[in-house]
Amino acid sequence: MSTVSPSAAQIRPKTPVTPPDRSPVLRRLQRAAGDRDLSSLSDRLATLSELVAWDASEIDTAIASLPTSDRHVHRAAHHLLALGGKRLRPVCVVLASRLGGELPESRHDLAIAVELVHCATLLHDDVVDEGDVRRGAEASRVLFGNAASVFAGDWLLVEALRRVRATRVDEALGRLLDVIEEMIVAESLQLEARGTLNLSEDRYFQVVEGKTAALFRWAMFAGASAAGLSPAQRDKLEAFGRHLGVAFQLIDDLLDYAGDADVTGKALFTDLREGKATYPILYAAKHDAEVRALALRAMKEGHGPEGHRHNAALLAKLRELGALKACRELADDHANQARAILLELPRTPARDALLTVTDAIVTRDR
Amino acid sequence: MSTVSPSAAQIRPKTPVTPPDRSPVLRRLQRAAGDRDLSSLSDRLATLSELVAWDASEIDTAIASLPTSDRHVHRAAHHLLALGGKRLRPVCVVLASRLGGELPESRHDLAIAVELVHCATLLHDDVVDEGDVRRGAEASRVLFGNAASVFAGDWLLVEALRRVRATRVDEALGRLLDVIEEMIVAESLQLEARGTLNLSEDRYFQVVEGKTAALFRWAMFAGASAAGLSPAQRDKLEAFGRHLGVAFQLIDDLLDYAGDADVTGKALFTDLREGKATYPILYAAKHDAEVRALALRAMKEGHGPEGHRHNAALLAKLRELGALKACRELADDHANQARAILLELPRTPARDALLTVTDAIVTRDR
Repeated sequence: MSTVSPSAAQIRPKTPVTPPDRSPVLRRLQRAAGDRDLSSLSDRLATLSELVAWDASEIDTAIASLPTSDRHVHRAAHHLLALGGKRLRPVCVVLASRLGGELPESRHDLAIAVELVHCATLLHDDVVDEGDVRRGAEASRVLFGNAASVFAGDWLLVEALRRVRATRVDEALGRLLDVIEEMIVAESLQLEARGTLNLSEDRYFQVVEGKTAALFRWAMFAGASAAGLSPAQRDKLEAFGRHLGVAFQLIDDLLDYAGDADVTGKALFTDLREGKATYPILYAAKHDAEVRALALRAMKEGHGPEGHRHNAALLAKLRELGALKACRELADDHANQARAILLELPRTPARDALLTVTDAIVTRDR
Repeated sequence: MSTVSPSAAQIRPKTPVTPPDRSPVLRRLQRAAGDRDLSSLSDRLATLSELVAWDASEIDTAIASLPTSDRHVHRAAHHLLALGGKRLRPVCVVLASRLGGELPESRHDLAIAVELVHCATLLHDDVVDEGDVRRGAEASRVLFGNAASVFAGDWLLVEALRRVRATRVDEALGRLLDVIEEMIVAESLQLEARGTLNLSEDRYFQVVEGKTAALFRWAMFAGASAAGLSPAQRDKLEAFGRHLGVAFQLIDDLLDYAGDADVTGKALFTDLREGKATYPILYAAKHDAEVRALALRAMKEGHGPEGHRHNAALLAKLRELGALKACRELADDHANQARAILLELPRTPARDALLTVTDAIVTRDR
């Protein structure tokens, strides 16, 4: 079907693209860090941006050039893709691929694939969670319906798998299929616990490993494999990806309670309203038996006339019990473990850039 | 994740299975044909059953032994898989794989994969169409929820792709990804036309090619590739699969108006209630401008107190205009084109069995 199955040649931009001095994504991360007076991080993000500017531009162009048509499946997918997002997972692929000798050509297809898989899960999640806002705009399911959003996610998965297959990078496809399965099972686990706020920490971390860390792990695995690194090095980089992913999710959990909705682009207390028990709640509930009742009330009435009062009471309780601090500390702990792995590697611009990514992830405010 | 990623060894049954004299599926087809006094077809189905009995039993066992857990994603998938169905697509893979010299070992994984992809689409379709009954039982989405049904479909797709990848049969994986994309785009097309009953015949056949014929085509392609047939032979068998798939869909369309709900396991007029214009409606509307209004009324009021009257009026009109007869004739026409392709092949038990499958598909009453 010519409208939807372009050859690789069709996907590439027709004329060479002038690389921007920094990608919009990194500019955003940098601004976030700058706002918070982390000027050293801001400088390092500038260096990172310079390093991956060309790659990021090629990846952005390729994503924007994905086949399209009037079909709702295509429009729903492109609506989300055009909103951009942080594109952290592709940056991980590209930086991992720069840790070897020669720069592998396959890095772009692998980087595009990881972003497409991520976007596929967002399209499906918004259907499952009845989410209305995504990346600061109306969710695709609001504009094109739930069914189109499901099909759009399916389509992006197929596009991702096709690209990974075409690279012929050893094991990348098999491992991606495993990761997608882990993501599905984790989503199912999260779904079953929904609304009860009764989730053990073990289960919580199973969900985080599956729904967030697994794809960061794969990003590092894929980049490292493309670069021809040894299995031992690949294992280390996967472990890095895992810690980075867990840290990322913990900060996400934190921002849902303690972020600035105008900056994050989504309303506060969204996890709770969707019935999801995240780390701050689990931590606080462990230290005070009253927390679950408070949280259940905020979950049920957060939208109602008394919503603000319930949310404020819960937030005060979380702060009083040090739950937000504990969440940040655990994120820092995972970030430190991630850094320790990198520090064993020889110092190169790509390694330093991965350190910068780690720092940016735990200091981000969006 | 050990609960969901078994090795191939784990998937195989622990003790050798005694092959049943005929698979439940074929027994059902045979009974259907027998009831209608097609005794020659009934005899030929017995021969077909004998030919594939061992394969069918291995495939059934492998499907029943897919990894499982308490997760709703697994339970939703297994609920559908356990209901069996006709398993026509795996039979196509197996018979195509028997058209070459040696019997390829990969045939079972390819046959399982085609059934898993088919079941994945049923799980997603029931969510999109809000279908409550599937294979004569409650749909998975009714028992486990829409989200679990979406995840279950995703999981079966991943399982299917993993198996096809493991066979290393040339192009089978790439072609399956293409086919899944075709199916998604066709579903999107069908979705957008829903409720209007305003679909051109061109569009209708685009939907049929994508949502039904594409997977039958792949079944034949995969079996033929596994058997090492030449590209020219594979092309012919794909064309056979395409005609078979179109004939299959036309009979499905027909049974929705003219079948026996107790036999088909689903209520009549379901397509119409879901807002889908199928061939009988399109044919009749072309010959009588009144049909679309009648059909729209039956679509909207088919569930109401006057439902029976509206449905009966539409059915009478379809009969009067010869729309059901035309639908069967078109199915027969595609079946004849399918047979003609087979008759060019040397006479072997597998070729004759494919002729039998073709006959069974157009004479089926369920």
